[in-house]
Amino acid sequence: MTATLSRSTFTGLRCKECGHPYEASARHVCEDVCFGPLEVVYDYEAIKNRVSRATIEAGPASIWRYREFLPIEGDPIDVGTGFTPLLKAGNLAKRLGLKSLYIKNDGVNMPTLSFKDRVVSVALTRARELGFTTVSCASTGNLANSTAAIAAHAGLDCCVFIPSDLELGKVLGTLIYNPTLMAVHGNYDQVNRLCSEVANTFGWGFVNINLRPYYSEGSKTLGYEVIEQLGWQLPDHIVAPLASGSLFTKIRKGFDEFIKVGLVQEKHVRFSGAQAEGCSPIAQAFEAGRDFITPVKPNTIAKSIAIGNPADGPYAIDIAKKTNGSIAAVSDHEIIEGIKLLAETEGVFTETAGGTTIAVLKKLVEQGKINPDETTVAYITGNGLKTTEAIASSIGEPYLIEAQLDSFKAAWAKAQASHQG
Amino acid sequence: MTATLSRSTFTGLRCKECGHPYEASARHVCEDVCFGPLEVVYDYEAIKNRVSRATIEAGPASIWRYREFLPIEGDPIDVGTGFTPLLKAGNLAKRLGLKSLYIKNDGVNMPTLSFKDRVVSVALTRARELGFTTVSCASTGNLANSTAAIAAHAGLDCCVFIPSDLELGKVLGTLIYNPTLMAVHGNYDQVNRLCSEVANTFGWGFVNINLRPYYSEGSKTLGYEVIEQLGWQLPDHIVAPLASGSLFTKIRKGFDEFIKVGLVQEKHVRFSGAQAEGCSPIAQAFEAGRDFITPVKPNTIAKSIAIGNPADGPYAIDIAKKTNGSIAAVSDHEIIEGIKLLAETEGVFTETAGGTTIAVLKKLVEQGKINPDETTVAYITGNGLKTTEAIASSIGEPYLIEAQLDSFKAAWAKAQASHQG
Repeated sequence: MTATLSRSTFTGLRCKECGHPYEASARHVCEDVCFGPLEVVYDYEAIKNRVSRATIEAGPASIWRYREFLPIEGDPIDVGTGFTPLLKAGNLAKRLGLKSLYIKNDGVNMPTLSFKDRVVSVALTRARELGFTTVSCASTGNLANSTAAIAAHAGLDCCVFIPSDLELGKVLGTLIYNPTLMAVHGNYDQVNRLCSEVANTFGWGFVNINLRPYYSEGSKTLGYEVIEQLGWQLPDHIVAPLASGSLFTKIRKGFDEFIKVGLVQEKHVRFSGAQAEGCSPIAQAFEAGRDFITPVKPNTIAKSIAIGNPADGPYAIDIAKKTNGSIAAVSDHEIIEGIKLLAETEGVFTETAGGTTIAVLKKLVEQGKINPDETTVAYITGNGLKTTEAIASSIGEPYLIEAQLDSFKAAWAKAQASHQG
Repeated sequence: MTATLSRSTFTGLRCKECGHPYEASARHVCEDVCFGPLEVVYDYEAIKNRVSRATIEAGPASIWRYREFLPIEGDPIDVGTGFTPLLKAGNLAKRLGLKSLYIKNDGVNMPTLSFKDRVVSVALTRARELGFTTVSCASTGNLANSTAAIAAHAGLDCCVFIPSDLELGKVLGTLIYNPTLMAVHGNYDQVNRLCSEVANTFGWGFVNINLRPYYSEGSKTLGYEVIEQLGWQLPDHIVAPLASGSLFTKIRKGFDEFIKVGLVQEKHVRFSGAQAEGCSPIAQAFEAGRDFITPVKPNTIAKSIAIGNPADGPYAIDIAKKTNGSIAAVSDHEIIEGIKLLAETEGVFTETAGGTTIAVLKKLVEQGKINPDETTVAYITGNGLKTTEAIASSIGEPYLIEAQLDSFKAAWAKAQASHQG
């Protein structure tokens, strides 16, 4: 019964540029007209009639509490994804000089500790509905973890593609689920091009290629959850990492949809984006006042957001401009300091992408681009245990002692002196 | 107002052996009479009058939905801990020949990906109420991660103790929060003895020593959640790892309390425990029909459960006996196979302790000690990213290819051949 209800809220695909309609099959490009990207179309009147704050609050503690807003027809593949904590970050706020700061922590998302579990849960549900038995992706690591894990749970065959220089945690964290794993000599953009060719040749469901319109919708839940967790209110300012730019646009879409169906009062929200200096094509374009992207060759420790030719970059720039937000980049050193700052103040251990977000947050506050009075939400998208290499040489060492009180006392005296020093 | 309500459900401490009462201060041993362990006393009539399925369901998606059953007085330190997924494990059930198997996945617990976040959230809340400004623990790794992280969030000073041979993920995953970290030459039991001395000398709150009665109560939530997530029913059989034995006894206590206050219908639940052969003092005693523990020197990859002199071992044996359960041990090789089996079938990547639980689950089914018709819950207590060393050499490697379709096709043909071979 839920399946029937849901089916009619999601009506097809449409070109984001020219509006040309398509049926809800595995396709992502406006092949008939303008080669623009396709997006999912909903019947918002139908959603409005069916959904209320109460119906959502009565749903599961996962993204599937918002299923009327997601492009699936039947039962979801539910692995507990979503509804991660929105942490009131009082210590970090104080350190930065903000009054009201929240951390949306997808570093503890289920099952594989990044926001990618949201998009993959949606994409693989849709893949199964469209009859795919093998699923695939081009990934900077987190997506590979997530696709392999959720495919294993759903009993789908899985072949994933990553750049060959990824962090060990991300490689092991994919292999453990026993997919076929292809490590490609080259950067993400080269991996992505190869995958487009494979998608055209093999009859597979690539979550971020031919299933991309469905897949990317999963990120909207990061918008919905923040609204609900703020007590059905919009924040004033959000800061999110920019890789392809898709996450950024979908948080916005999530906010807009909740306004559209009357779940939350309209409000101007500023959108700011974070990149690593070693791969900052969107920040560079924003800075230069361009509305197009000049691709770059990535060279940064923030591998999970190292996309040199970001598909949704122009849309991200448009949003930052229209909302009076910013897009900034930080160095690898600042990224590590960002990881440490968040851990020390809030007990949240994030990967390099999250360090990028925190470092940019800090920078924007210092530059006066985030107002201290704004209720600000920083999106943390992945877990620190996945990129331990990046910080291993920057976080000190334990005091090595014998199992005797005197040995401890000597070390403790040293520790105290070093704190005061 | 909630604080006042809660205060009166938790009335003090009492010796588990002789029943002698104590006030609710930082103490864990029956110093006045028999040196037995202390436990928390509640007013169950008061709880019964205040709590219903509906009040619990209306609470937060964390352990604090059960706060009337937890030994705190005021506002909790809430970092989103608990209410982790209970995953219906259809693929693994089929592989093992079970009809109804669930995985309780604390490998995605918040904030540090192990069940220890439950006990530490409770212990640090109580530590703050008792006026401690520095908190500490003796840890096999997960507890250190959790104590350091939650102390950072709560603004408490933190000094933690670990054996010096721990996995890198657990060391980095503690250091990142910037506590004082003491790596002790010796095994956990030696670390623990040193910490008892420190606890007597320094005025610190040791979560698993002088705060142990409060701390250990946090594990009861693993019992409550399973009942609620099964639709307010008890399972037939549970399998959990045994380290000190405390977790095992507290899951039982959680079940018993929900029966006592009328939240769930009484039912006989069988309790089975899992140990690694390289540290199996409880399994050895159980096997030999002993009700006392002969300490051992740990030597296993399952470091997080490697406690050679387990404090609650005798209680664990008692529960397994009384419920017609089992306690079994598995080899390090079986532990790795257990990790892989769970990942491949269910998309859940657990650490060595979880591999131990799955390997013992498998063994008990094969030995006919778990009935295929029993609704069985396996408790997964930590995340696989913390013990990657243990599996790195056992899970194969990616296919290394060029960013060209032909290179992929050749590798894919090889992969297919190896699957069929």
